[in-house]
Amino acid sequence: MKLSLLNDLRQQNPIVFNISNFVTVQDVANGINAIGASPIMSEEVAEADEMVQLAQAVCLNLGAFTEPQIKHIKVTGQLANKYHKPLVIDPVAVGAVAYRAKVAEDLLTAFQPDVIRGNAGEIAALAGVDWQAKGIDAGSGSGNLVSIAQSCAIKRRCTVILSGPTDVITDGKRTVQVLNGTPLFQTHVGSGDMLSSIVAAFCAVDPDYFEAAQTACLVFAGIGQRVAQSDPQMGSGTFIIKLMDALQQTTVAQLEELAAYD
Amino acid sequence: MKLSLLNDLRQQNPIVFNISNFVTVQDVANGINAIGASPIMSEEVAEADEMVQLAQAVCLNLGAFTEPQIKHIKVTGQLANKYHKPLVIDPVAVGAVAYRAKVAEDLLTAFQPDVIRGNAGEIAALAGVDWQAKGIDAGSGSGNLVSIAQSCAIKRRCTVILSGPTDVITDGKRTVQVLNGTPLFQTHVGSGDMLSSIVAAFCAVDPDYFEAAQTACLVFAGIGQRVAQSDPQMGSGTFIIKLMDALQQTTVAQLEELAAYD
Amino acid sequence: MKLSLLNDLRQQNPIVFNISNFVTVQDVANGINAIGASPIMSEEVAEADEMVQLAQAVCLNLGAFTEPQIKHIKVTGQLANKYHKPLVIDPVAVGAVAYRAKVAEDLLTAFQPDVIRGNAGEIAALAGVDWQAKGIDAGSGSGNLVSIAQSCAIKRRCTVILSGPTDVITDGKRTVQVLNGTPLFQTHVGSGDMLSSIVAAFCAVDPDYFEAAQTACLVFAGIGQRVAQSDPQMGSGTFIIKLMDALQQTTVAQLEELAAYD
Repeated sequence: MKLSLLNDLRQQNPIVFNISNFVTVQDVANGINAIGASPIMSEEVAEADEMVQLAQAVCLNLGAFTEPQIKHIKVTGQLANKYHKPLVIDPVAVGAVAYRAKVAEDLLTAFQPDVIRGNAGEIAALAGVDWQAKGIDAGSGSGNLVSIAQSCAIKRRCTVILSGPTDVITDGKRTVQVLNGTPLFQTHVGSGDMLSSIVAAFCAVDPDYFEAAQTACLVFAGIGQRVAQSDPQMGSGTFIIKLMDALQQTTVAQLEELAAYD
Repeated sequence: MKLSLLNDLRQQNPIVFNISNFVTVQDVANGINAIGASPIMSEEVAEADEMVQLAQAVCLNLGAFTEPQIKHIKVTGQLANKYHKPLVIDPVAVGAVAYRAKVAEDLLTAFQPDVIRGNAGEIAALAGVDWQAKGIDAGSGSGNLVSIAQSCAIKRRCTVILSGPTDVITDGKRTVQVLNGTPLFQTHVGSGDMLSSIVAAFCAVDPDYFEAAQTACLVFAGIGQRVAQSDPQMGSGTFIIKLMDALQQTTVAQLEELAAYD
Repeated sequence: MKLSLLNDLRQQNPIVFNISNFVTVQDVANGINAIGASPIMSEEVAEADEMVQLAQAVCLNLGAFTEPQIKHIKVTGQLANKYHKPLVIDPVAVGAVAYRAKVAEDLLTAFQPDVIRGNAGEIAALAGVDWQAKGIDAGSGSGNLVSIAQSCAIKRRCTVILSGPTDVITDGKRTVQVLNGTPLFQTHVGSGDMLSSIVAAFCAVDPDYFEAAQTACLVFAGIGQRVAQSDPQMGSGTFIIKLMDALQQTTVAQLEELAAYD
C-alpha cells in the first residue's frame, strides 16, 4: 500500500477526463478537485480526441447512458487505449438492468479497461456470477466476494475493485482487502462515482494500476472513516460536505494511523 | 394523516424511478435516499420498460424537457399506467411558458397521472384558471387556492398537491391543508422537485394516493420546519444540508409533535 | 463602484435565463436564487424565444457543448440581441481545447455579447494572445493581464471580465481591478459559472454593463472573502455552503467595509 501516492497526486495535479453520470457529475468534479487532481468533463464526441490527449487518465461512468452517450463512451474508451491513458470503468446498475448489461458487454469488447470499479451486484454481473442486485444498490447474494472479484478480473483482464463495507481489489493474482470505511458512504448517492474518478486520478500517478487502485480505495475509505468518527450523529448531508473538506485536507500521516487492510 | 407511513417507507425501501429535472437531479436522488427509499434515474427510452418494472413508483418531472426527453416521459408514463405503478407528475413552469403548457397537455392525454404536484402557478395553469406565474416561481393571483386545486383534481381525475406556504392536497372530494413548513424551502431551487419524488415514494407504500400525498407533504414540510427552527439565522445553503440530515434522522414521534393540518 | 446595485437586484428579483454547464447547473441556479434573482434553465430550443422574452438577462455557458446545445446557444444569443436583453458569455475551456475555440469563434460571429467572463486562459484565447491554459483551469502565461483583458474587450466590442486572484474588468477604455477574493473559489468547480450568471443578474438592473460587471465581481469576491475569513481552516465543501448562505445574507454596508479595488 503506497499511501505516499496521495502526495504525488497532489504535486502532479493530473487532469482526469470524465464521461460522467448526469446525476452525480458535480460531486464527482468537486471530489476530483478536492483530492488534488483537475477534472474535465464533456458530452461531445467531436472533442473526445483532444480531451483524451489533454488528460492523464480517463474515467467512463455507465451511469446514465443515452444512445449518443454510449457512442461517446465507446469512442473515448478506444482513444484511451490508443493513447495509452489509464482507463477506469464504472458499470452502474449492470446487475439490475438487462439493457445495461448488454450494452456494457458490447463496450467491453470495443475497448480494454485498466480498472473496473463497481458494487457487488455490478461486479458479479460482469463476472457472470449469479447475484440479486437492487436498482443502483449492491443487493445481496451468497457468493464469496473475493472470488467474485477475482473471476471478474480474470475474465476482464484488468484490475477490479468490488466496493462495499470491505473493498476487494484484485488483478486476478494479487488481492487486497481494504477494511476502512463508514456506512455513511451508502447514504450518499454518488460516493461510488466519486471513488471511480479518484481511482483514475491515482492511476495517473502510478503505472501499476493494482497499486494505484488499492491506494485510492484506502485513501477514500480512510478519509470517510475519519469524517464519520468526528461526529457519531452525522447525517448524510453533512457527511458529503465534510468529506469534500477532508479530501482536500487529510494528510498521508493521518491516513497511516488508521489504515486497515490485508 | 398516517404519519406511520414514514416507518413503512423506511422498512420497505421502495425503488422510485425518476425522469428528473437536469438542474436538481442530484438533490432529488439524495433526498429520495435520505428519506429511506432508493432512487433510480435514466435518460434512455430503451431501458424505460425495465426501469418501470423495477420500480415501485414513478416520478416524471417536466422541468427541463428536450424533445427526446418528452418522448421518454410519454413512453414512461404509459408504462407506469400499464404496469399499475403509481405515477407522480411535476409540471415545472407550465404556468409561465406556453410551449410547456402545450406539451404538458399532450402528455396528460397520453397517460393518466395518479398525483400532480406543482406550485400555484402550475396547478392554476393545469386547472385552466387565470394566474400570473413568474418563471419557475409560483407568482401571484387572486383565486382561492383550495378551489383551484380542487378544479385541477376534478379536471385531471387525480390527486393534486398545490405546494406553497400552505400545501393544499385534494382528490376533488377530500381536501387537506398542511400548515407546516418554512420560507427556507423557497430559497432552495429543487425543494419542489424533491417533494414530488418523495410523494412517489409514499405512494409506493400506500395505495390510497390521497393519503400518501398528504402524509408526504406533512413529513417534508414538518422536517423542514424543524430544521429551520433549530437556527433562526439559517441560510439556504446550510438549510439544504441539514434538511438531508433530517430527512434521514427525523422520527414519526418528532413529526407528531408539530404536525399542523386541517 | 455602485454597491447599491445589490439592493436594486434584491428588490427587482430579475429573471436570468441560463443555458448552463451540465456539471455545475444546480450550484448556478442556487447561486442566482441566493443573491436575490430568479433562475430559469432550459435545454430545448423550441422554448428559447419565450424564455428570452421572459428573462431580464441571459447567460450562455459554453462549458459542455454538444451539437444540439451549440445550436441552442446560437439561437438564444441571437434572440437576446433581438430583444435587447443583456447577454453574458462564459467561454469555458476555449483556451485548452481547439474544438471549443473554433466553435466559440463561430458563435461570437453569430451574436454580439455584452459581457464575456473567463479566466486568464480563456480570455487570452479570445483575445488571440498566446497563453498556456490547463484544462478548465487558468494555466499560466507571461502576458500582462490588464492588457490581455483590454485587447479582448476591444476585439470583441464588449465588457470583459478576466477572473482570478485579482479580477480585471474593462470595456476597452475604462478598467477596474477588484482585489477582494479568496483562494477557496479555485477549490470549488463552478465558482466561475456562478459568477457569470450573477453578472447577468446585475446587468438586468443597470444598463451600464461595465458598471454592472464590476459591481457583480466585487459583490461575489467580497462575499467569498468574508466567508473565508470567518474560519481560516475552512475546506472547499463547507465554503460553498456558507457562500450560498452569505450570498443571501450579506448587506451592502458589510461589503462597503471591505471593498478593495482600483
